[in-house]
Amino acid sequence: MVPHLITALTGPINQLEARVLESMPAIERWFRLEWMEHTPPFYTSADLRNAGFKLAPVDTKLFPDSFHNLTPEMLPLAVQAAMAAIEKICPEAKNLLLIPDGRVRNSFYLQNLQRLVEIFNQAGLNVRLGSLDPALEAPTSLALPNGGELTLEPLVRKRGRLGLKDFDPCTILLNNDLLDGVPRVLQHVHEQYLLPPLHAGWPVRRKNRHFQSYEEVAKKFAKLLGMDAWLINPLHGHCGQVDFDSASGLDCVKSNVDALLGKVRRKYKEYGIGEKPFVVVKADNAGGTGILTVRDARELDDRERMLRGRAALVHPGEALDEVIIQEGVPTFERIHDAVAEPVVVMIDRYVVGGFYRVHADRGVDQNLCAPGSQYVPLAFAGGGQLPRPGEKPGASAPNRFYMYGVIARLAMLAAAYELEATDPDAENDA
Amino acid sequence: MVPHLITALTGPINQLEARVLESMPAIERWFRLEWMEHTPPFYTSADLRNAGFKLAPVDTKLFPDSFHNLTPEMLPLAVQAAMAAIEKICPEAKNLLLIPDGRVRNSFYLQNLQRLVEIFNQAGLNVRLGSLDPALEAPTSLALPNGGELTLEPLVRKRGRLGLKDFDPCTILLNNDLLDGVPRVLQHVHEQYLLPPLHAGWPVRRKNRHFQSYEEVAKKFAKLLGMDAWLINPLHGHCGQVDFDSASGLDCVKSNVDALLGKVRRKYKEYGIGEKPFVVVKADNAGGTGILTVRDARELDDRERMLRGRAALVHPGEALDEVIIQEGVPTFERIHDAVAEPVVVMIDRYVVGGFYRVHADRGVDQNLCAPGSQYVPLAFAGGGQLPRPGEKPGASAPNRFYMYGVIARLAMLAAAYELEATDPDAENDA
Repeated sequence: MVPHLITALTGPINQLEARVLESMPAIERWFRLEWMEHTPPFYTSADLRNAGFKLAPVDTKLFPDSFHNLTPEMLPLAVQAAMAAIEKICPEAKNLLLIPDGRVRNSFYLQNLQRLVEIFNQAGLNVRLGSLDPALEAPTSLALPNGGELTLEPLVRKRGRLGLKDFDPCTILLNNDLLDGVPRVLQHVHEQYLLPPLHAGWPVRRKNRHFQSYEEVAKKFAKLLGMDAWLINPLHGHCGQVDFDSASGLDCVKSNVDALLGKVRRKYKEYGIGEKPFVVVKADNAGGTGILTVRDARELDDRERMLRGRAALVHPGEALDEVIIQEGVPTFERIHDAVAEPVVVMIDRYVVGGFYRVHADRGVDQNLCAPGSQYVPLAFAGGGQLPRPGEKPGASAPNRFYMYGVIARLAMLAAAYELEATDPDAENDA
Repeated sequence: MVPHLITALTGPINQLEARVLESMPAIERWFRLEWMEHTPPFYTSADLRNAGFKLAPVDTKLFPDSFHNLTPEMLPLAVQAAMAAIEKICPEAKNLLLIPDGRVRNSFYLQNLQRLVEIFNQAGLNVRLGSLDPALEAPTSLALPNGGELTLEPLVRKRGRLGLKDFDPCTILLNNDLLDGVPRVLQHVHEQYLLPPLHAGWPVRRKNRHFQSYEEVAKKFAKLLGMDAWLINPLHGHCGQVDFDSASGLDCVKSNVDALLGKVRRKYKEYGIGEKPFVVVKADNAGGTGILTVRDARELDDRERMLRGRAALVHPGEALDEVIIQEGVPTFERIHDAVAEPVVVMIDRYVVGGFYRVHADRGVDQNLCAPGSQYVPLAFAGGGQLPRPGEKPGASAPNRFYMYGVIARLAMLAAAYELEATDPDAENDA
């Protein structure tokens, strides 16, 4: 099922689409050369926003949890990409240990895990699940919504190696963003491949660092295509010490919001865009899904609103002292009148599928990753690699999806840059 | 569209299917380890025959010409596999020179070329077509049945490099089995990658050498699965000097036919198979599609039949002095009452799709690659990688297709062994 796209069919995005299509072999070669220098994250998903006048990633996940949203037709691509990934990392591997996050009772998340097990099983690995929960002392069955079951087992740590009872894996695959910190059992695992690396988790990761890398990547790519990087890059600023409780604690946020809104306003003017600019404030060091939408720095003086805002950004009890202020990119895509944003899923350097996140009750400037959102799996897999060069820009879903696959891979490349820059062992390696 | 399979649902094949399914991760790992030691051919297609009691490859093409039979849904897999192949061979490549065979006026073959151009274009290469025809002096347009066109250009040879006017490729991809010999323009191309290598062409290649390698591979694989290699291996013999014109010239063929029929008879008895065994005689050193079916060595005394037989095996005017005698594998698959055989297409080490070759007017023991055959593209792509482990053997197309993908990859691996054994530069490399 390919939903009808009602993205505005004129304006800069269609110029971008035309440029991307005519440059396809050059773009693919450019990625190929970048991957010679940089190692892609093991797996990645990117949330994109298409404003009609601008297309940009707004969130890049290094522990993607939406493999269940891929259609069965997309799976062979995922299996093939997983084969390529394993072959490079640990070609002799028999076993893969998958470490899920704490949400193992959530039925959507369980389906995500089931899909991951399926993919790596078919790529030639025995896959078993290890739990970070120290309270788990014996193998525990988890019933899957579709009738099957998964078994969660206690981790067994022996000196440098991590495994399960009678199960010694070559690679340990984390599907856990480590928001609660790096558990001791995962520290100093030097004899096995622990992927993604620990510094991809939130204790180290910062969104502003990612978008700094993304800006670098977007500028290189824009140069290749001879276009303005802003068309694919959401501007951002960040504040490393924020105190929501005092008025002056928000000074940094205010000045960043003000500066960013000014920059966006100038860009809107340059492109003749009639929209009212907005920025979003997010926690810089958490995968938390809350955002605070701001259209005027003066809104930050409304203390009531700020306190409600802070509550939305973090889980109860968590401190919020680092925020990223990001240019808001409205989404102009709709599926049956509901606001939609594309999500692209990647394994190794390959786009393996995608889907739309749809929310009937949210506005174009709001976060769609919230209760009530629906997911429409899309034939991205085909479209992601198979543009139709003859067709008019904006006229076909496959062409639009190819472009989405390109922008999502830019976000993945930015993550590769980011992980290199934040690698604590980088100096030892050099 | 997945045609209804009426393969006999009981007997050894279903045991094989069950064994293949339960061993999936071990099989995939086994292939992974084999590919660490052996380089897969650039692309391969394998014709399989499923007898219900036996499943075997009967022909392995190293210059596959049926990419047009893949459905559009299969293309992303082909593009991804092509990306992986290019990345290993020549990651910095901008250009790919494709050299088709002489059938460039045949509309099916043109569609095959168009599909290849599309795949490698989307993998990030500028693809142009160079002609081996010395009479072609200027670029020539070839109209495609679907409205587009391809341009065939004269080859330009400059010392060690081969290209076109203003087009210097890193890789030269042959889609030509060199049946007429190796043209001078292709000799001593040492500065570029010429793939598949010249010794994959018929001047060097011998079917019996391939099936010798296949037997080796099948035995290894059978050992892994703890089964009889005969269930996947067509027995064969060969005669290097045959003279169809004299009665004694066929002595070698006769004794081979007799010995092979004896072996097959014993195997049929062992498995309680009620069929009457047959063997097929084929040219050993040509991709020619003719076969001669023999059920009794005494048939070879029928001179009339032999001369008609010879005429079927080679093109008019060609000598036939080397033949392979192969165990005949009847095909028990039908699509709407027509006899069908599966063809699996691979790029690099990956199954990228498959289709059924169907012929309404042929018998179960005849060659289906003949005028009047139809092609039914099959959703092999999905099935090839995505078995459903829970299902009863013989009950589902995906499981059957996964097994087909495994057997086809064994044929591809055999081709890798074969190309190593026949590599004229092997000693230099060592």
